[in-house]
Amino acid sequence: MKGDKYLAHKAKLKIIPLGGLNEIGKNMTVFEFGNDIIVVDCGLAFPDDEMLGIDLVIPDITYLLKNREKVRAIVLTHGHEDHIGALPYILKQLNVPVYGTRLTIGLVEYKLKEQGILKDSKLITVKPREIVEIGQFKVEFLRTSHSIADSAALAIHTPVGTVFHSGDFKIDFTPIGGEIADLHRFAQLGEKGVLVMLCDSTNIERPGYTMSERTVGETFDNLFRKAEQRIIVTTFASNIHRVQQIIDSAHKYGRKVAISGRSMLNVVNVAMELGYLIVPDGLLIDIDEANKLPHDKVAIITTGSQGEPMSALTRMASSEHKKVEIVPGDTVIISASAIPGNEKLISRVINQLFKKGANVIYEALADIHVSGHACQEEIKLLHTLIKPKFFIPVHGEYRHLVQHAKLAETLGMPPQNIFIVDNGTVLEFTKNSGRIAGTVTAGKVLVDGLGVGDVGNIVLRDRKHLAQDGLLVVVVTISKETGGIIAGPDIISRGFVYVRESEDLMEESKNVVRDVLSKCKKEGISEWATIKSMIKDDLSSFLYEKTKRNPMILPIIMEI
Amino acid sequence: MKGDKYLAHKAKLKIIPLGGLNEIGKNMTVFEFGNDIIVVDCGLAFPDDEMLGIDLVIPDITYLLKNREKVRAIVLTHGHEDHIGALPYILKQLNVPVYGTRLTIGLVEYKLKEQGILKDSKLITVKPREIVEIGQFKVEFLRTSHSIADSAALAIHTPVGTVFHSGDFKIDFTPIGGEIADLHRFAQLGEKGVLVMLCDSTNIERPGYTMSERTVGETFDNLFRKAEQRIIVTTFASNIHRVQQIIDSAHKYGRKVAISGRSMLNVVNVAMELGYLIVPDGLLIDIDEANKLPHDKVAIITTGSQGEPMSALTRMASSEHKKVEIVPGDTVIISASAIPGNEKLISRVINQLFKKGANVIYEALADIHVSGHACQEEIKLLHTLIKPKFFIPVHGEYRHLVQHAKLAETLGMPPQNIFIVDNGTVLEFTKNSGRIAGTVTAGKVLVDGLGVGDVGNIVLRDRKHLAQDGLLVVVVTISKETGGIIAGPDIISRGFVYVRESEDLMEESKNVVRDVLSKCKKEGISEWATIKSMIKDDLSSFLYEKTKRNPMILPIIMEI
Repeated sequence: MKGDKYLAHKAKLKIIPLGGLNEIGKNMTVFEFGNDIIVVDCGLAFPDDEMLGIDLVIPDITYLLKNREKVRAIVLTHGHEDHIGALPYILKQLNVPVYGTRLTIGLVEYKLKEQGILKDSKLITVKPREIVEIGQFKVEFLRTSHSIADSAALAIHTPVGTVFHSGDFKIDFTPIGGEIADLHRFAQLGEKGVLVMLCDSTNIERPGYTMSERTVGETFDNLFRKAEQRIIVTTFASNIHRVQQIIDSAHKYGRKVAISGRSMLNVVNVAMELGYLIVPDGLLIDIDEANKLPHDKVAIITTGSQGEPMSALTRMASSEHKKVEIVPGDTVIISASAIPGNEKLISRVINQLFKKGANVIYEALADIHVSGHACQEEIKLLHTLIKPKFFIPVHGEYRHLVQHAKLAETLGMPPQNIFIVDNGTVLEFTKNSGRIAGTVTAGKVLVDGLGVGDVGNIVLRDRKHLAQDGLLVVVVTISKETGGIIAGPDIISRGFVYVRESEDLMEESKNVVRDVLSKCKKEGISEWATIKSMIKDDLSSFLYEKTKRNPMILPIIMEI
Repeated sequence: MKGDKYLAHKAKLKIIPLGGLNEIGKNMTVFEFGNDIIVVDCGLAFPDDEMLGIDLVIPDITYLLKNREKVRAIVLTHGHEDHIGALPYILKQLNVPVYGTRLTIGLVEYKLKEQGILKDSKLITVKPREIVEIGQFKVEFLRTSHSIADSAALAIHTPVGTVFHSGDFKIDFTPIGGEIADLHRFAQLGEKGVLVMLCDSTNIERPGYTMSERTVGETFDNLFRKAEQRIIVTTFASNIHRVQQIIDSAHKYGRKVAISGRSMLNVVNVAMELGYLIVPDGLLIDIDEANKLPHDKVAIITTGSQGEPMSALTRMASSEHKKVEIVPGDTVIISASAIPGNEKLISRVINQLFKKGANVIYEALADIHVSGHACQEEIKLLHTLIKPKFFIPVHGEYRHLVQHAKLAETLGMPPQNIFIVDNGTVLEFTKNSGRIAGTVTAGKVLVDGLGVGDVGNIVLRDRKHLAQDGLLVVVVTISKETGGIIAGPDIISRGFVYVRESEDLMEESKNVVRDVLSKCKKEGISEWATIKSMIKDDLSSFLYEKTKRNPMILPIIMEI
């Protein structure tokens, strides 16, 4: 019996997304065949607005832990946080080898070192077109273009057929760094036959083509040529090609370059060491040196393209940066677009910079950024080359997955061969068939400080309540014998009203509490839970009537 | 002496913005000449992300209250919340006549009725090109186009010259409703000479022209022609012309129309009563009736274009609407663009609607919205017609004001005649000169429930702290005589950690408190403030070390 089941099982490939579907970020997909599991990507997501106080979100890997003896490796497509950011957390629970291209592994190395777990990890660097055997999988890394160097698509060869995973990609015919996406191999794979494709849906709503990274270089050239004073440029730290273009423009126009911001320094160092960033000798100087040079000889590359409150550019804009003070005449270039949710933060920084007299160049005013993701025509090119039998749109919210499915249909794919699924869905493929075969545990694990998963809905609900209307603590000491009040009631409030201007309200609130207690005494109610809930109810009604607010009420009864 | 000063004073016009500069919303500008003050617009703003729990923000009118005997009127340019929303609050403190065009006054009437202060208010309806004398001011209302009907620019004729205030505007050559901006009168005014112009800066970053409202109608026509089942359209309630076009399309394609959402119902009723919305007899039905019709005979117009959590569309999307259930085949049209900060809310609603099988049409996919504000070429047209001597860019963040000033310079205006100022700045004009003459109190008054201005920085700081890491209340009863512990320490936490999974942490925390108390007893420290601050410090360090979180700590000592 067991043998039969095993044989039947053997002929099927399972694909189980654990992250990246119906959300942006936290990308992770499980490929399972017989006794072998490989995991593609291990990313984090940033918290939603409702996840108050949460630092970051990682995938729930219950399924992997249950099957830990099967898990052979984590395979990475590229080095962005939404693809590698959960590694320090996951490797602590599941220490398996990690495969990736050179820059990706370089960035992972740095990350694991920081967390003190590098020495226990096994990191394996793979070259484009190299095929690595992992259990019954043969994983082939194929070059793509993206907003980070060394990004890869994966052709995962399995006993039932080849799976193509696009990773994050775009098609840039004139990329910085020179090497374009491996269209030739994509075509070969398509010709031979691809069973399933998983493909990036991020920009599926945008018609046409994403402009080449090189077009941003032309804008930089223009701006650097015209700028008469200091130039400060911010972009995503991981966008090595963007940084390369800034460095090239600075070099061309006789400016030295200083770097500000921890993550920018880290990435630049890793990229230089590995040869992904080519910097002329003597061009890079530190900020102290830069401050001694004439302003027209200096460019500063900095973090803060999303207006992050603690980033270098934000600190410069609010005069809190220790080494860089914005002065009239500075040109500040924000070479990025807003990730949804960050619009107001960026806007605030732009306003502050203008107030200091800087000339601020941002996306609304100049072609100073291109996306790292393929638009509709590029996505069509990939579908056409790969011509998979089955298709799973990935990396997107539900709306993106739906639009991507529609696009695939316009290219001739039968709707029943397209799977719009959720994290945790088990898809099962044979050589000729594909179906939804069930679900496994999947979800969000919230990281807050050192706590991984210890903040859940109750804690978040309380934080939200406290954030809206603050709280009121009522303390009273009562006698064990008589039930009479010995001390209090005292009332302490935070985040509710100005206490100084609300003395009357506080006095009246104490009276409400006294009334409840005397009523309880009179009626012989001595259950603490009942008394507390009566205090909560009466006080809550009283305060709502007076203020139309609903503070959290915490009654504390001490008995002696 | 006093007389001299008064005479000198008389020959000068003061313009004092109290809102709308370096911010979006809360528009209010004071015009003062001698003993006469008029106030243009009386708007609210929506709270920033940091203003936790705040409902809305209104201007600080300290200056007006100090000069209450001078204030003759409030003059409104149009009926949007950021121009009329603060009226119920301001009129309670300063009951002066309110002037506006017919629809504007209609909407104000409704608002004041709701607040129960209509009977005490004096509302005066003015026609386009009508001139009203208010003190020494002659205020002329001039038709413009905007995303609400009956919007007006103002020519304010004063003894030192004419001031032109654009209000919110765009130039639509084919407006719905038929009447275009009064370019002829603008030209006359410019020819005669305008001293100062205040002009809307909202879309100053956008090149070209804002498309005509009529183009959206063409999209509606297309969508209504193709839709085979029910159509649900959401837009800003106040966009009467948009609602008119939806109604026209519904009528053309044989659909009845039902309205959902309180604010949509209100505006539609006011607009129909006043003749701004022309609805064929019998076309409007209520939702219960609509639910009895075949789906291809129904269109629903609803609130929720910004994904507002309590709005009708959001409730439909999350299956919480009592009367409308989204079913596969529904076409949902979101005829709006995201106000910055609302992107994620809207995105969530779109995803939910797709999941229910609706075909969702939104801005990324179709030309389903146009802005209500002028782009660069329209703004240039206005500057060119009015050719003011002095210019104050208004209605925008600092970056918008700067870009608007730059645009004015390209049109030949001398930089020294342009005033980029802040709320509270006093600008003083004579027939030939303009200068910054000082500042007055200006700012944000926060409204939270019934409280107007009772929530300030301390309360908001506490709410933010509580939102991030929750709180820990420590209660202990100690003896007056011995200083020894009689009861406790008890610890209660909310929004910090799951209490059930953190019993050890709570026990250890109690020990930290016990240690502090015994140390205090030993060292003879009996000042409560000192003891409390020691508990806070030690517990805070302990918890940060254990969790890397910083909950608010509230030590409460009861003494008996």
